[in-house]
Amino acid sequence: MSNKTVNVAVVGATGAVGEKIIRELEAKDFPVKNLKCLASKRSAGKTVTFKNESIVVEEATPDAFRGVDIALFSAGGSVSKQLVPHAVEHGAVCVDNTNAFRMDPNVPLVVPEVNSEKIREHQGIISNPNCSTIQMVVALKALYDYYGFKRLIVSTYQAVSGAGANAVKELLDQSRAVLNGEPFDPQQLPVGKLNKHFQMAFNAIPQIDVPDENGYTLEEMKMVRETKKIFGDESIQVTATCVRIPVVSGHAESIYVELERDFQLEDVRQQLRDADGVTLVDDLEQQLYPMPIGAEGKRDVFVGRLRRDLANARALNMWVVSDNLMKGAASNTVQIAELLVN
Amino acid sequence: MSNKTVNVAVVGATGAVGEKIIRELEAKDFPVKNLKCLASKRSAGKTVTFKNESIVVEEATPDAFRGVDIALFSAGGSVSKQLVPHAVEHGAVCVDNTNAFRMDPNVPLVVPEVNSEKIREHQGIISNPNCSTIQMVVALKALYDYYGFKRLIVSTYQAVSGAGANAVKELLDQSRAVLNGEPFDPQQLPVGKLNKHFQMAFNAIPQIDVPDENGYTLEEMKMVRETKKIFGDESIQVTATCVRIPVVSGHAESIYVELERDFQLEDVRQQLRDADGVTLVDDLEQQLYPMPIGAEGKRDVFVGRLRRDLANARALNMWVVSDNLMKGAASNTVQIAELLVN
Repeated sequence: MSNKTVNVAVVGATGAVGEKIIRELEAKDFPVKNLKCLASKRSAGKTVTFKNESIVVEEATPDAFRGVDIALFSAGGSVSKQLVPHAVEHGAVCVDNTNAFRMDPNVPLVVPEVNSEKIREHQGIISNPNCSTIQMVVALKALYDYYGFKRLIVSTYQAVSGAGANAVKELLDQSRAVLNGEPFDPQQLPVGKLNKHFQMAFNAIPQIDVPDENGYTLEEMKMVRETKKIFGDESIQVTATCVRIPVVSGHAESIYVELERDFQLEDVRQQLRDADGVTLVDDLEQQLYPMPIGAEGKRDVFVGRLRRDLANARALNMWVVSDNLMKGAASNTVQIAELLVN
Repeated sequence: MSNKTVNVAVVGATGAVGEKIIRELEAKDFPVKNLKCLASKRSAGKTVTFKNESIVVEEATPDAFRGVDIALFSAGGSVSKQLVPHAVEHGAVCVDNTNAFRMDPNVPLVVPEVNSEKIREHQGIISNPNCSTIQMVVALKALYDYYGFKRLIVSTYQAVSGAGANAVKELLDQSRAVLNGEPFDPQQLPVGKLNKHFQMAFNAIPQIDVPDENGYTLEEMKMVRETKKIFGDESIQVTATCVRIPVVSGHAESIYVELERDFQLEDVRQQLRDADGVTLVDDLEQQLYPMPIGAEGKRDVFVGRLRRDLANARALNMWVVSDNLMKGAASNTVQIAELLVN
């Protein structure tokens, strides 16, 4: 594609991520010729504002992709599995923000700060990685290039917005109920479609997404598998514990990384200051460190609490925070779309 | 001390932990002859209920310990530093629930399920470890004995009650304010006496206690130092990331442990089922795992999400939850007192 205006479709335009994608297309002045807002039949007929124009949401059907150049999918894995092939058939390049195609060997899995060159290999589909993976690989890219690493141990502190707008509403309503001593009936978390639902307000739930294999959840295995694929390095060993906490927006991660070479902490800080997409916030004495509330609405990945493992001179603890709907979803998607048009 | 009734003093009787200690003395039918409730001058004159009797709180002064056999301290490190020596001089055995004497080589640091034999070495003072350490060592004791380990990597998800009753009130008031879109002014967290205070509602704060050394907080270093002392094994390497989350009660920990011997996961489960003070809740397929809300008011340490590191066959991830005011403070303190009288 040349540097002209393009027809863009956003699938899942009324969802939490879809809305952020539309705001990112505006904010970054993406060269949109025509914007098609697609969603489920239920949401068809609603309106969405784009650059002060009101756009009527249409139902996402196979034929809706005629004439679309770039389709940005954020409507869940089953919608992507069903509609992405039709969009590709109609000639659109799809940037898919679901788990549907991420591990498909024919589909590049792209975080622009890490492996933008992979975009060239696409055959109509580019996958956007999972939110928790994206912020980890952005934070680690400079360390991977400069020091190398084979081993990551990560524990996440994930926001409820990652489970969708209904889950956020439930967290807020439930928090009110708990504060007022009123009854409530959890329906959304940890996973809407599973049997059991738990209180999220003033609680921590050590399950995100469905069980996968060997006692790990799918969310945990996404971090294992996607990290290898994004770095193109099957030797990277990741083990993850993914936990939902009562935060609306902004995932945090406690990452332990064993580097392949000796390091000076000040050099690591300098690498991170220079890294694309990273903001270093790291001075414990001054109480400077990233927190979810400070990351909201920002595009960067924030890194702090850098410190050497006192027992393993090659290993480093770090604390990584990012807005899971922005860099973790919408802004990474729009960055990929920008690479496609440039 | 023989198995008779004893005179007990609770210092910090009106605080969050002090109140729980008094409830534990009742619940476990501790052989109390006389209960003295001590607190700061400000709280003197308040009343506390013990076994349906009303006890007037007295000011904690050096002379208040005359005739006291066992003094249970939970009024902060500076109060302990000042008054514990006086209590010892008056012949009391002190169980101190602050950081004041924990690393003193003459003071046993005791978790009854792990090192109850150390109590015999006391010279008037026994320290109760920090809450986050206690639940970790209880969860790991059986694995230490059976498989051995040298290396722990832990990330915590800590409740606000660990910062005191005022911090809990602030979390609840602040949550209401956020939900209602009203202003608020953080005063308590992460550390009341430090300069900067942050929103705790719907946020995660990667600082607990003051900065210590090498970029670690004191809370993190407590986990490093106390674990070695409790196991009596300086070769145990701990690296910790301690994070406060908007939970009222119940600390959670994501623990990565490298065992010294090969293991079968089912054997590890059996070790934990048989372990003192541990309840195993571990079946992801059935969505069974410990959570802070389920641990509230319980004495046990709950362990779940057991799974092997897919890249390191000797290593194990586990998720450990306990009521930080109960096993993390009050019930461990009363267990130590029980060992003293038995």
